[in-house]
Amino acid sequence: MPSLKSHCTTTTIIRICLVFLLAGGILVEASDPPSSTTPTANEAKNDPLAQIIAAGPEDDFALTSLEHLCDSIGPRLSGSPAMDAAIEFSVKSLREAGFDRVWTEPVMVPAWERGFENARVTAPNPYPLPISGLGRSIGTPEGGIEAEVLVVSDFAELEARADEAQGRIVLFDPLWQGYGATVGYRFRGASAAAKYGAVAVLVRSLTGSSLATLHTGVMGYEDDVPKIPAASITVEDATRIHRMTARGITVKVHLRMSARNLPEKEQANVIAEIEGSEWPEEIVLVGGHLDSWDVGTGAHDDGAGCAIAVGAVNLIHKIGLRPKRTLRVVLFASEEFGGISGETYLKAHHDELDHHIAAIESDSGSFAPDGFSARTTPAVLTRLQKMATVLEPFGANKVIEGWAGVDIGPIVEQGVPGLAHRTQNEHYFDYHHSPADTFDKIDPQDLAANVTTVAAMLWLIADDPVSLRE
Amino acid sequence: MPSLKSHCTTTTIIRICLVFLLAGGILVEASDPPSSTTPTANEAKNDPLAQIIAAGPEDDFALTSLEHLCDSIGPRLSGSPAMDAAIEFSVKSLREAGFDRVWTEPVMVPAWERGFENARVTAPNPYPLPISGLGRSIGTPEGGIEAEVLVVSDFAELEARADEAQGRIVLFDPLWQGYGATVGYRFRGASAAAKYGAVAVLVRSLTGSSLATLHTGVMGYEDDVPKIPAASITVEDATRIHRMTARGITVKVHLRMSARNLPEKEQANVIAEIEGSEWPEEIVLVGGHLDSWDVGTGAHDDGAGCAIAVGAVNLIHKIGLRPKRTLRVVLFASEEFGGISGETYLKAHHDELDHHIAAIESDSGSFAPDGFSARTTPAVLTRLQKMATVLEPFGANKVIEGWAGVDIGPIVEQGVPGLAHRTQNEHYFDYHHSPADTFDKIDPQDLAANVTTVAAMLWLIADDPVSLRE
Repeated sequence: MPSLKSHCTTTTIIRICLVFLLAGGILVEASDPPSSTTPTANEAKNDPLAQIIAAGPEDDFALTSLEHLCDSIGPRLSGSPAMDAAIEFSVKSLREAGFDRVWTEPVMVPAWERGFENARVTAPNPYPLPISGLGRSIGTPEGGIEAEVLVVSDFAELEARADEAQGRIVLFDPLWQGYGATVGYRFRGASAAAKYGAVAVLVRSLTGSSLATLHTGVMGYEDDVPKIPAASITVEDATRIHRMTARGITVKVHLRMSARNLPEKEQANVIAEIEGSEWPEEIVLVGGHLDSWDVGTGAHDDGAGCAIAVGAVNLIHKIGLRPKRTLRVVLFASEEFGGISGETYLKAHHDELDHHIAAIESDSGSFAPDGFSARTTPAVLTRLQKMATVLEPFGANKVIEGWAGVDIGPIVEQGVPGLAHRTQNEHYFDYHHSPADTFDKIDPQDLAANVTTVAAMLWLIADDPVSLRE
Repeated sequence: MPSLKSHCTTTTIIRICLVFLLAGGILVEASDPPSSTTPTANEAKNDPLAQIIAAGPEDDFALTSLEHLCDSIGPRLSGSPAMDAAIEFSVKSLREAGFDRVWTEPVMVPAWERGFENARVTAPNPYPLPISGLGRSIGTPEGGIEAEVLVVSDFAELEARADEAQGRIVLFDPLWQGYGATVGYRFRGASAAAKYGAVAVLVRSLTGSSLATLHTGVMGYEDDVPKIPAASITVEDATRIHRMTARGITVKVHLRMSARNLPEKEQANVIAEIEGSEWPEEIVLVGGHLDSWDVGTGAHDDGAGCAIAVGAVNLIHKIGLRPKRTLRVVLFASEEFGGISGETYLKAHHDELDHHIAAIESDSGSFAPDGFSARTTPAVLTRLQKMATVLEPFGANKVIEGWAGVDIGPIVEQGVPGLAHRTQNEHYFDYHHSPADTFDKIDPQDLAANVTTVAAMLWLIADDPVSLRE
């Protein structure tokens, strides 16, 4: 069991507090000799933000919650009983932590069942082919599908070789050039190939680093195109089949999947608040998504985001602070199949949208903090950048213009300033949507640093005398 | 399909040749201006070693052979039909390459069948537990074994908690501290636990880097201790179960394996020679092992070693060279279950052992060259170190005292100077014995550099007027 051994010693905390005090413009006597830190540290104790920054790195609430979520509840596929258990655990945990209000709001979520899945190369020599069915994919007929494989590197090659696709299993083997550049093969590869008569698609797992690792994810079917089964295979198997076909060898695959889409199910967004001391009707929202894929345990995606959101508000509450505005945690019910729970939240809270001062989403894993990206007006962006300067000791003082998040997307579209919590996630896609997205990949110090920086940002926004929306 | 784009441009080759000429003590006129390299390059053309060093980085024989071995033949478990196919391919390939003599020598190899294997955690919440049965393990009874898991970090903890082992599945979850420090848990964990009444063992995969990757390997049973089934699980699953039990949670596992040991089977060491021009009875041996585990395709372990051994001798032969002594390639039949084929080779060649001038084994993967380690007398070590200075441009000029290899071990024990070809293999155990040990992990430039440096070392030993054994 990892223990929280913070890298922040007392001395470091005092140093951080000093940086904060200076950055925040709070007066310290210029005559204070630099060697005498005690009075300044005492001063810091009375400042809310300094308290957050001092206490955060030592706080293990997020770590303990995340460990339970990942290890004991496990993967939380939208619509699954484990997701019900995760909702129940979250409500209980938020109540026990003493949040002022904890409730759930129903969301009709997509439900998909992976079922049995099995594949093998049948020619030239038989060998097993591990697969991971893509979310929303249909299954094969009961006896499976066997066909020759047509390998293409990209959509352009599929177009060029369209006349070869009839009756084939099309394998997309795109070079990894980042998630954004390759996710299209997973999402729309099936319909693209089915248009030319393909009977199934296989997609190389979307990752830059594979140790025979399968990465799943959602796909979608176009209307008016036959639906065909879709699964991912490892980088190792995709490149092996590609090399063989490039040498003129005919490769055949037998694929069997019992995957199926089920009727929507009612689950829930989990919501909890710490009420503001001056303007309780004004809300600063922070959230992540509680659902995950059914492989791994959704540690980085997005158990960590939920733990950071809850942990940040809990940290503020635990040290006895209460900002002027209300802090609202939202654990969204269903992100992996699309932004359903964010849309539901928007509908349910349309009337109080103007009271949403800002929304922060954490869905970028829990690596070392890397600041925020914001989707808002230039003026608000400038204000956020100024606020974030105090997070320099955590490396989290960057606020760039950009993406805010899938789940807060619908309210951000309506004008709520949106921030995505960012981490140094170069290794995120090593784990993403795979059995390797597990709690052992969580660094306790990084998690605590993320809790601290998000808590600080929440405090700065929620306690500011001037609303971000003014 | 990877292509061999050598990093050695013509200019680089000329530079390497120059280094070689200078290191080898061949006279170049001191008045030659450094900018005029042409005459020296011409001189290099007439020198065998310079020719090897110039041609090696451009040669793709090893790469092409390895690609076929890995992709088309696939994994080559000792005793399997695929291993028969690998022997057949090797013989054919060596004959086609024009080696002077190609033959096989029978080896009785162990045969083990993985069969069906399946496990799941059954309490507190059920979830699938991917396993990889350890080589030589017995299976479970047909209905499987279900028991509570006792997790221990090391043998000391097993001893301390011996009274808890009765009727349990013992999980060894040792921290990765390198292969040598942890392989004991895989090899002798079953009997260690069975002594205290355990009904099966699970072992954390031996690797420092996991993306939900299973690593298999051989195990052994002690006499007079009940035989119990043994399998590896991923680092992710081992640490998850360990964390849960550390929190006081009872974890139960159901394990089902149909693994079984089969009667020994006759397979063969593949042997090929290029006859020496002056002392054909004197042999410089180079080899690797052709067998692999049944997962992955044995690319680094040890398809690469075989490709390097064959590729190195082929390179010398292909450019029309013939050293004074005979070069003998040996592709050993069975290393993964122990040094059986090396013992068989010793028995078959006992009479000509004094004519074995040296033996090089390549079984350290094909990463960037890192020289050799040698098991021999101090005097021979010094001579080898002097020879290797010409390999400095490849970073392969180090010859340290140490290990020589499993397969050449028996003849090295009898006094044959032994060398292990070394590569910078910090990532070797990321792939080792796992489904990730595949051809995509082979860097064509590294492979060609290994072929070149081994060919150069072979040439230096085989063409030296003074035998290493004098």
